[in-house]
Amino acid sequence: MSHKIILDTDPGIDDAMAIFFAFQSPDIEVLGLTTVFGNVPVDMAARNALTLCELAGQEIPVTKGVGMPWVGPESTYAHFVHGDDGFGNINFPASNRELDPRSSAQFIVDMARQYPGEITLVAIGPLGNLALALRLEPELPKLVKGVSIMGGAAFVRGNVTPVAEANIWNDAHAAEIVFAADWDLTMFGLDVTNAVPFKPSFMETLKGKNEKLGGFVFNAAKFYTDFYSANRDDRVCFFHDAFPLAHLIQPALFELTEGHVRVATDALNRGQTIVAPEGTTASPLWTEANKIKVATGVDHSKLEQLFIDTYAR
Amino acid sequence: MSHKIILDTDPGIDDAMAIFFAFQSPDIEVLGLTTVFGNVPVDMAARNALTLCELAGQEIPVTKGVGMPWVGPESTYAHFVHGDDGFGNINFPASNRELDPRSSAQFIVDMARQYPGEITLVAIGPLGNLALALRLEPELPKLVKGVSIMGGAAFVRGNVTPVAEANIWNDAHAAEIVFAADWDLTMFGLDVTNAVPFKPSFMETLKGKNEKLGGFVFNAAKFYTDFYSANRDDRVCFFHDAFPLAHLIQPALFELTEGHVRVATDALNRGQTIVAPEGTTASPLWTEANKIKVATGVDHSKLEQLFIDTYAR
Repeated sequence: MSHKIILDTDPGIDDAMAIFFAFQSPDIEVLGLTTVFGNVPVDMAARNALTLCELAGQEIPVTKGVGMPWVGPESTYAHFVHGDDGFGNINFPASNRELDPRSSAQFIVDMARQYPGEITLVAIGPLGNLALALRLEPELPKLVKGVSIMGGAAFVRGNVTPVAEANIWNDAHAAEIVFAADWDLTMFGLDVTNAVPFKPSFMETLKGKNEKLGGFVFNAAKFYTDFYSANRDDRVCFFHDAFPLAHLIQPALFELTEGHVRVATDALNRGQTIVAPEGTTASPLWTEANKIKVATGVDHSKLEQLFIDTYAR
Repeated sequence: MSHKIILDTDPGIDDAMAIFFAFQSPDIEVLGLTTVFGNVPVDMAARNALTLCELAGQEIPVTKGVGMPWVGPESTYAHFVHGDDGFGNINFPASNRELDPRSSAQFIVDMARQYPGEITLVAIGPLGNLALALRLEPELPKLVKGVSIMGGAAFVRGNVTPVAEANIWNDAHAAEIVFAADWDLTMFGLDVTNAVPFKPSFMETLKGKNEKLGGFVFNAAKFYTDFYSANRDDRVCFFHDAFPLAHLIQPALFELTEGHVRVATDALNRGQTIVAPEGTTASPLWTEANKIKVATGVDHSKLEQLFIDTYAR
């Protein structure tokens, strides 16, 4: 069975790895890439998404989405993680393809109306496009099959602050809207993505299996690995954004926990995803909040093998 | 060597256990009990402290302190944990002794001036008295030897909300003042106190070793154990407040981690103690904050033995 998805993204190196993974998978049909600010400004995210589609020979729509947070000023960007180009400063030639003229949010709504109950929204950047789509079409939760996000830190430390993960920190108000909507939402946060360090030998294997796409990831990941290895003894990087896709294809690789979730939007705690597993709190701030599924465990070696086998196709 | 301490408390069942432990220890000299609202209203806390002193034959000063949080309305109280009387509804006869006329904060300042550099403030309730003492005497950090508190949850879940421990939640603004002051502060939070469940056999042993004081704890702990066991298979309770005292006497029982700490005061996160160990964040919200010591591990069996041996004296 093939999963119809819209991939909401801010490429980004782990976004590129995830996008190619989705393209290569026989179990996933990507209806379009909807872009959003996050790792890079939204104009660069949109251009980068077109470039990745052209490289992969994919003719799907690419849209440009929101460029700043739901509340507050434009963000800072993670060029120190993803390079000035979002691809680890590899100077890859940009595509001349054109964007779909619709906003990312409108594209999401249009596709959900066209394929009611069939689409899984896979959001691997900040959640502004999904929040805006919920405002454009309040019935959206009934029109999609589910939502899988890369973001948050439920029971582990954050990566922007001690409590906040970057995607949620970048647009905490949008995240609170998305978590509060009445849909089937699964969160793949640092609980699982930081548990799986990828060594250069893994990127070499991807390149060996697929010179064009794996080779791109191999090249882009050098800068990215420099960032992650700065405070470690070994050289590794983390492919956060590929996790929700891996779960769509092989859910058995993951452990999930249900919990009520709230997103903090205030100064010190901006972007914190506070999850209360059922029965662990009496506070109505949580017991009356939506319950979502949180990925808390993953089989490292089977996950690596899934990535390698899929790139090898 | 004997440690001069002021014990700031809101008795409370685990407060009673801790107070008797301090009284019994040859290594601790209690200069006075300063009371504060928390488990119970401050008038009850003050009366209960007098009762515990009378039972133990201690003639030390007992003061009444702040009765409400630094910011916001009067708290709710934890009668569902500690009983209507703060002692597990055991109807123990109240003392007719009189309070020292000074406020708890003034007593702390007076003693710190009288014994400069000698006193460890051991705070096992909300931190309003210490915050107020810092306002009365800004030089207080130079006048005391150190501060040890029971409160907070650094790397584990809270007990009032998913992120907040009760003492800090009860007066988050006061806690932020106390954590920001320039003194040697060690935090004994749920990281260690929730790691050590005490079974009824432990309370029986205390009673067997010391009929008067251990017997009081044994009786009071029945209601308290009912609360803690409601959602568990075994019968246990937690003696949070005794931990900073045990560390004074036998520091080797504990593992400590240094970290920069901030206390959240806003709605969802009220009372969260957000700790960033050195080098784990670049955010100036933490790197520019005070560094404190956080208890992260404790030797369970040696801790029980220390309590038992001390009660047996």
